[in-house]
This record gives sequence, C-alpha cells and structure tokens, in this order.
Amino acid sequence: MDHRTGSTASVAGGSRAPTPARRLGGWGFEGTLFEPSAELLAWLHERIGSPPPGEPTVPFPSFDPATFRAGPGRALPDDLAPSTDALDRLAHARGQGINDLLRVRSGTLPALPDAVLRPESAAEVEAILHDAAREGVRVIPWGGGTSVTGGVTVMPDEAPVVSLDLARLSGLEALDEISGLATFGAGTAGPALEHALAEHGWTLGHFPQSFELSTLGGWIVTRASGQESLGYGSIQDLVAGLELVAPTGRLELPALPASAAGPDLRQLVLGSEGRLGIVRRATLRVRRRPETLRVTGTLMPSWDAGLAAARTLVQQGVPLTLLRLSDEPETEVAMTVGLGGAAWVRPLLRGYLRLRGVGRSPRGGWGCLMLIGAAGAEAAVSEALDDATAILRRHGGASLGERPGHTWIKDRFRHPYLRDALLDRGIATDTLETAAPWARVPEVATAVRRALEDALPATLPDGAEDERVAVLCHVSHPYRDGSSLYFTFFFRCPPDADRAVARWATLKRAATTALVEAGATLSHHHGVGSIHAPWLGREVGAQGLRLLAASAAALDPDGVLNPHTLLDPTDRLEV
Amino acid sequence: MDHRTGSTASVAGGSRAPTPARRLGGWGFEGTLFEPSAELLAWLHERIGSPPPGEPTVPFPSFDPATFRAGPGRALPDDLAPSTDALDRLAHARGQGINDLLRVRSGTLPALPDAVLRPESAAEVEAILHDAAREGVRVIPWGGGTSVTGGVTVMPDEAPVVSLDLARLSGLEALDEISGLATFGAGTAGPALEHALAEHGWTLGHFPQSFELSTLGGWIVTRASGQESLGYGSIQDLVAGLELVAPTGRLELPALPASAAGPDLRQLVLGSEGRLGIVRRATLRVRRRPETLRVTGTLMPSWDAGLAAARTLVQQGVPLTLLRLSDEPETEVAMTVGLGGAAWVRPLLRGYLRLRGVGRSPRGGWGCLMLIGAAGAEAAVSEALDDATAILRRHGGASLGERPGHTWIKDRFRHPYLRDALLDRGIATDTLETAAPWARVPEVATAVRRALEDALPATLPDGAEDERVAVLCHVSHPYRDGSSLYFTFFFRCPPDADRAVARWATLKRAATTALVEAGATLSHHHGVGSIHAPWLGREVGAQGLRLLAASAAALDPDGVLNPHTLLDPTDRLEV
Repeated sequence: MDHRTGSTASVAGGSRAPTPARRLGGWGFEGTLFEPSAELLAWLHERIGSPPPGEPTVPFPSFDPATFRAGPGRALPDDLAPSTDALDRLAHARGQGINDLLRVRSGTLPALPDAVLRPESAAEVEAILHDAAREGVRVIPWGGGTSVTGGVTVMPDEAPVVSLDLARLSGLEALDEISGLATFGAGTAGPALEHALAEHGWTLGHFPQSFELSTLGGWIVTRASGQESLGYGSIQDLVAGLELVAPTGRLELPALPASAAGPDLRQLVLGSEGRLGIVRRATLRVRRRPETLRVTGTLMPSWDAGLAAARTLVQQGVPLTLLRLSDEPETEVAMTVGLGGAAWVRPLLRGYLRLRGVGRSPRGGWGCLMLIGAAGAEAAVSEALDDATAILRRHGGASLGERPGHTWIKDRFRHPYLRDALLDRGIATDTLETAAPWARVPEVATAVRRALEDALPATLPDGAEDERVAVLCHVSHPYRDGSSLYFTFFFRCPPDADRAVARWATLKRAATTALVEAGATLSHHHGVGSIHAPWLGREVGAQGLRLLAASAAALDPDGVLNPHTLLDPTDRLEV
Repeated sequence: MDHRTGSTASVAGGSRAPTPARRLGGWGFEGTLFEPSAELLAWLHERIGSPPPGEPTVPFPSFDPATFRAGPGRALPDDLAPSTDALDRLAHARGQGINDLLRVRSGTLPALPDAVLRPESAAEVEAILHDAAREGVRVIPWGGGTSVTGGVTVMPDEAPVVSLDLARLSGLEALDEISGLATFGAGTAGPALEHALAEHGWTLGHFPQSFELSTLGGWIVTRASGQESLGYGSIQDLVAGLELVAPTGRLELPALPASAAGPDLRQLVLGSEGRLGIVRRATLRVRRRPETLRVTGTLMPSWDAGLAAARTLVQQGVPLTLLRLSDEPETEVAMTVGLGGAAWVRPLLRGYLRLRGVGRSPRGGWGCLMLIGAAGAEAAVSEALDDATAILRRHGGASLGERPGHTWIKDRFRHPYLRDALLDRGIATDTLETAAPWARVPEVATAVRRALEDALPATLPDGAEDERVAVLCHVSHPYRDGSSLYFTFFFRCPPDADRAVARWATLKRAATTALVEAGATLSHHHGVGSIHAPWLGREVGAQGLRLLAASAAALDPDGVLNPHTLLDPTDRLEV
C-alpha cells in the first residue's frame, strides 16, 4: 500500500506545510500505520474466530494501482476544464466507509467520476453548475472524502458525473478578533484551519476523528461533531454565517450571533449534504486557545453506573469539554491498545481496582472506562476535573489519573488506521453512531448490539451460519437531555469483495433498523449520505421529506447536485 | 379601560388558577397598572416636549367597547364551528404593537377576523385546515396575541379570515425526568407552563417580557428569547422535538439531543410564523429549578467600558444567566423607575459614584447601568456574581449591590403596562431590537439612534418639523460572538390615530433600514411578522426567500396560512 495519487497530493489547500500523500483504499496518509497489538488480535479471534478453514485471507489490496487504467470518462463540456487522470478519478470515486475500502482495495468499483474539477472561485463554481445543468452532468461535491455514509459515492448512472474538489477554495479569509469570528474557505482541512487560527492565538475546537483529512465544508454539510463538542459545540453551533453557491444563485447568510428573522436557513444548509448547493465559505465562532487540555480516565463499576454519572456531570453543568464512557467490551479493547498502561502494569491495576470495588464482574473484566477532559486555564481545568472526579467517585469510579488521557490524546486521530491493518488480516470493522434521550440510551445500546450479534446467522445467504460479530459501544457527545452512542463492530471478512460488502450490508441494515425502531436518530454526526437515505423517512416522516425535496428543488431545479444522498430511498448499500 | 372580553377570559388553558381578563387595546390584564413617576414624565417632557399647543391629547380610548358592534363576518363553512362574537373577533384582530394599540383604542381597525376557532385536538386542526383550503379561507394562528410585528394582524383581504386560537391545545402532556424533557401543548401560556413544571421541581427558564401572556407555540414560531437566555438559551435551544399540523399532513420531529439526519427541520419550524403549519405540541429541554436567582446592579463609567466588560464576561464563560447593559439615557430612565432606589437616596449615591469615578460625564449622568444575574445553587451563584463583579470593577464599574436587581425582578413583566399609561398622556413608545457581532454593536447602536432622532423632522408629512424622539438602548442576550441590542423610543402622539400610526411608521421604517444597512439582523427575538417582511430579503437574499417560499408552498400549497407574514414584501405598516 504505497501508491501515491499525484493529484490528490496537491489537495493540501490552505495548509502551509507540505502534506504527505493520501493513501488510496485506506485511511489517512502514506507512511502512518497503527498496527493491532497481539492482545487485540487474540481478543478478536476469541470472539469472532480465526479466518475460517478453506477461506484464506486474501491479502488486500488485490487491486494494483500501478497498473490501473480507468476507462475513458464520458464527454464533458470543455469549459468545465476537467482533470481526467485515471488515478485522480479513482481517488474521488468513494468515501471511507468499510464498503468503500473493500471496493477500492479489490478494484470492484462499479463507477468512477468522469472527471475531477477544482474550482478556484465562487464564480468558477457557478459556471460549473451552470454548465452541468445545461449538459445534464451530475456534480458531487468533494471535501476531504471521508464520508462513511456513501455521501460522495459515484453510482453507476446514465448521466456523466464530476467530482467537485473544493481544495482550492480554502484558507483563512478574515478574522474578527473582537467578536471571535473567523471566515474560512470551505475546502480548508482541519490541520490547516487550526494552524491558521493558532497563529493568532485562536482555536475552533472542532476535532472530529477525521480531523486530519476532513474539511470545513464537509463538516457543515454533514453536521459533524468534534471529540470536544461537549465544550465547544458541534459544527452547527460554530457556524455564524455562510455562503452557499447554488444552481439558482448565491445564498449569503451573514454572520450573526442569533436572529429571529424567520427560520434559521443556516440550519437548512447544515446537513444538506450537497443537495442545496456548494458551501463556499463560512464564518466560524472561534475561541482563545486554551492554556491546557487535560483528560483523565476512571473505571466505573458498571455501564449503568457510568451512564448515571455521565448524565449527572452534564446535567449539573460541570464545565468539561469531553466525556466518553465505554461499555465493558470496549473497555477491554481499550486496555489492549494501551489505555490501561503497559502489559506488566495491569496486574497491579487489577489489585488496585479490586480494592476500589471495580472489575468484579463474573467475566473478570475491567468495568467501564470513562474519559473526561477539560480545556482552558490551568486552574479552571483542575477545578472542573476535581469536581467531575468527585462525582464519578460517588458513582463508584476508581480513578486511573491522566495516563489513559495521554494515550488517548496521542492516538485520537490514529485509530482509523487500525481498520486498514485489521483488514489486512481478514478482519473487517465498521462504526455507526446515533443519539437518543438519556431515558432511551440503555435500550438503544442493547437493541443495536443484539441486532448486530444476531444478524449474520439469521439472514446471511453466503453460508456463514457460524459467523460471530463483536460489538463495542461508547457514549460520547453528551447533552443535558441525551447522548450520542457510538458502536464499533468486527466481523470476519470474506476474501471476495462482493460477499464481504454483502455481509457488511446485512449488519448495517439490521443495526440501522434497530436504532430507528428504538427511537434513536439515524445519525448523530456521520450524516445520511446514500447509505442511510432509505431510513430517513422513518425519522422525519413524509412531510419532512417533502420539505427537504422542496428545498432541494428550489435551489437545484435540474437535480444537478449529489442526487443519491438524503432523498434517494433506494437501498444502495451493496454498490 | 375596563372592558372585559368574555371569550378571551377562557383562554387560560392549562393554567389551574383563574386568570384575570385580558385588557382590550392595551397590555396584559385588567386591574394591573404601572404608572409613570413624575420624574419620568419630566424627563420625557424635557426631551420630546409637552403635548403641542392646539393639539390636545385626546383621552384614549376614543373607542367604546360597550357599544361595539362588528359588522357580520363573512360566511364560513358550518364544520368550522366558528365563534362570531363581536368582541371575540375584535380581541383577535391585532397583536400588541403600538400601532395595534392605536388602532384598537381608536376603533380604526380596517379589518376583523370573520370568526375565531378554538380547536381541541390535532384532528380538529387538520379538519379546519382542510375546510379552509377547500373554501378559500385564510387562517391566522393565535397564541397569546402579543406579536409586535404584525404577526397576527388581520389585513383587509378579499378572502374570509379566521383566527385559530390554540388555547385549548395546552397543558403538560409528558415529563421525562431522566432526560429532562417536558412535552406541552402549543397553546400553553408562560405561567401555566412554569406552574406545571414547578409542581415536579423543574423549570424551562424561558422568561420573555411577554411571559404572562405569550404561549409556547408563539415562542417557537417567532424564535423568542427569554430574559435569562444567557443561561437557559433561547427557545430554539430549548426545543428538542415538535409536532406541526400542516395542510399537507403532520410533521412529527422526535425529541433528540442532536442529530445529523439531514438538515434540522425543527429550525425551519422555529421562526416559521405560521407559514408552514400549526405547532400543536413541543418537547422542551427543562432543568431542575434553581435554588436562587440573584441580580446585581453596577454602574459602568461609559457605554464603551460597559460593552468591553459585557464581552469579557461572556467570552470568558462566566456562568451568568442574565446580562443587561443600558446606555446613558436608559440608565437615567431606570433611575426614574426606581432602579437607583428612592429619590432621597440618590444624592448619597452620587457622592459614592463620584468617589468611584463613575458618573462624571459632562451632562452629570449616571454612567451606564449593568445588571447581571445568576441562577442555581447558592454557592455557585455567589461565585459567579463575585467573579463577574471583579471583572466589572476592573472595567471601572461601581457596584450598587442587589437593590436594582430586586426592583428589576419585581417589575420584569410589568414594564409593558407603562406603555399604556404613557399613551393615556399622549406619549407613544415602541421598542425594536436586533443583534450583531460585537465588533458592530457600537456602530449599530449609533446608526439606529440617529435614524430615529432624525426621521421625524426630515420626512414627516404632518407638519411635525419640531418633533423630537427620545431613544434608549440596552444590550442584552449576549453571546460569545455578539449581542442583541434593544431600543425604546418615545414620541409625542398625535390624537388622530391615522396620523399617529403614520408618525410611528416613519420612525419604524427609518430604524429598520438603518439596522439592516449596518449589518445587523432584522430581529433578534420579535420576529418578522408583516411589519418587518419588506426587509427580509435584505437579510437572506433572493435565494433565502426562495427557500422559504418553497418550504411554505410544500406544506401549504393553497396558501391558507398567515399569508402576510415573512414573505409578503408589501409595506403594511400603516394598516
């Protein structure tokens, strides 16, 4: 996996420092790896089995980019000035879902964009949209390409498709240090954005796991949340104003602290997934960089005790920026990736925990790991963490101090690399997430776990009756009235890409149906894309779909933009 | 002014205690008065003059409800089961803007609703909307009738008009004490809502000045803010889920802490001013009732020092629930209504202030009054107020302690009564409000003040060249990135209602144009209604209007609902 995609290497945009090349068919950048520990592999093999006899793990990728030759793209008008480089088109064909990786790695993509466009101004975007409408070309906006919901998937389609890469519409455009407002081009990626703000002493505080790759425009159209959303808010709280270039014209919504001048149309663009237009820039609420960020770990005696403590922390308004409670399986995995310290430390840790009454479950587990973090001035951070730790202790927690926090901070953007390393070993992993009121959180966690654990034997047509699924869950992004739930699941990956994708799709359908039936939202921060679109009507109803369709038709009457996201009810999970 | 409107007396809805009758053509309830002090009258006469010679102040009302006989309403289908009582229709003809009061008091209303309907279920609302569409009847939703933007004005119109009073769709429907979520019928008025929550130890914390009259549904469709929005959030932050009954069907958006399942359609209903459908119920984020609310007063040496201090308090995240900074004229008026203590105290106060370096302005004023408040546990409130007071002192503030706060809390919902008492004396007063980033706040304050002060001599066609306007301003509802600005203005009221309304309209047009040109929003919490609608395009542009029109057309294809709000660009200020 050392294939450079020349053209995407130039995607760095507003960033000053040279950016390493993006990896094709995997997460992140060439040269960065995160290998699973032997402990983790043992844990997984115990739960989902080793690669089955007779089904050798095919070394991914079976696809060879060195010899990749895409067929010719369909004819496009000259004034679109497209790049039709084969690898460039390949690099813009899919997002970063496990299904996407399987398709790229195996070379079984059903479609590529016919070209890639990189406009340098709003006027160029307008011209592209105008030409596309005239010529019947479809346009898929591209930010960091990290969608895990099929938000940038090129579907086999009768119309030509171009990928509109916003990398050149990037960088800091204005900074109002009185109001704490910074205007950036939508193509600005996380590191470039924080770098530009840091030069002036500011931060946005928006750190999704995809931070190193994803862009402002992508965050906006998917309603992204950063890991510290408890303190800084999600992107929908951070956008004060924005400019959208739509096929019918520009929608410019000024930066305002609040307004009652009709419905908040910013909130219609936030989550619009490219259906309404191309986000060209946004003005963001930024803050002075905190003196410090400190994260501590505590082992809670049970999931229920952890949930009660998490709810108490948030409802009492303890000023944390981060809270994350893992269930028992995820806590076990966290221990295997170093959050409990080196292997030789752990027997000592067990002794300590026994004294504190934690980890006495029948399986001899660790209880449930709670990470809490606070950012700001040193004294305020200490006070917040002390207050929080006292509450955790009242709920039976045993503090592990800051070691787990140091490990978590160090690896916070590296975890996705682990997925590729596991896939190399025949283990597929995916994540999904939702949110629900606190009263429903336990029921949602159980429903999704059961759905994933039960899906394969019951329904798989590929003879996988004995396949098992390992499921981890954590609560994060908590609110006064509820919380996000985040699930990670592992299953053995058949070497045949179609069968692998089908197995994943079976799991995904079961989990999505379960969470919607349990009254949870279709997504807390991954968005809808094309993957979740068949379920959107279950959440917003016929009138909600009608409103969304009317909005899209108002600004994009010819249906040029990203036509399979949000509103296309067709199940395209196996594309 | 002792005219009872029998039918509106039954509007109490979910409230247990009997509610006194609403006053017709004035604010609030019969029997409640707030008379101006002699000091306030002297202050006003000095600035705007006494009633001009030759123009005696006609005692309002010239309209006599005892003899009121409305003409017959237009024919409506029987299945709408309308009330056609004359006074009931009159009570539902207008909101509570100064222009509305002038019209009702003088009996110069150009139109009444043809009937008033009070549905008791969502099914009844649906039936009414269905019948209205079939028969070409227009429907104006009615909550507390406190719109000051013409949001419920019945315009002279060719189609029959009914007022849809939601009083019977009220009361607490569900309370989830784990998640802190309470579901109420949209017709629930402020006191009934807080009373129902208080019985279980909860509060919404939403206290707009109209609290005693306005309803949940009205708050939602106008994006209302309460006086403690700094701590509790505005209504758009407090709504977790809602149900809208639209002509095309019901839009049910479940209560969720957050979601990335497409755009947040709740935020399209919030601020929709009846154009999309009838809000039938909402699920609200509630909190445990605070132990205490304490408000303190501080005199800041200048407007600029006060603004800098306000900004610092909010950007540093001091946990206040309320902040309000008056400019020098408003501070003078505050002193005349008791916020500086009794008259004999004030010379002592001046001595104290001179020692603290406040109030040394050339006019010998008081400086600028800052009120700050905190709610919660006693210790946390003390800490927040101490931290805040230290910051105010660093900006030159001189603390007045809690006396101004006690007075403010006592009178917080009574101030609108003063408007009627002044009108009885020939002085008209109105308020308007906006919001802007901090960097623009000084410029917006100046621009609006100048526009109001300059409007009458320059443009009045009624021979009022020597008329003057007194303008007060305060900053409240602050955010990290900006603040609301709230203006109160006084002018001499010609006894002829048409001329009085024309004079008001001249001032209103000038101020609205000025604030929009200064980059501020058309409204922070009063909404758009029909009064601000001609300016909405200046804020959201052609594409924004297009989105709003498409949304309205999607759910209300026959244009049944409140057709002159938001999207009707006609200047109807003098209706």
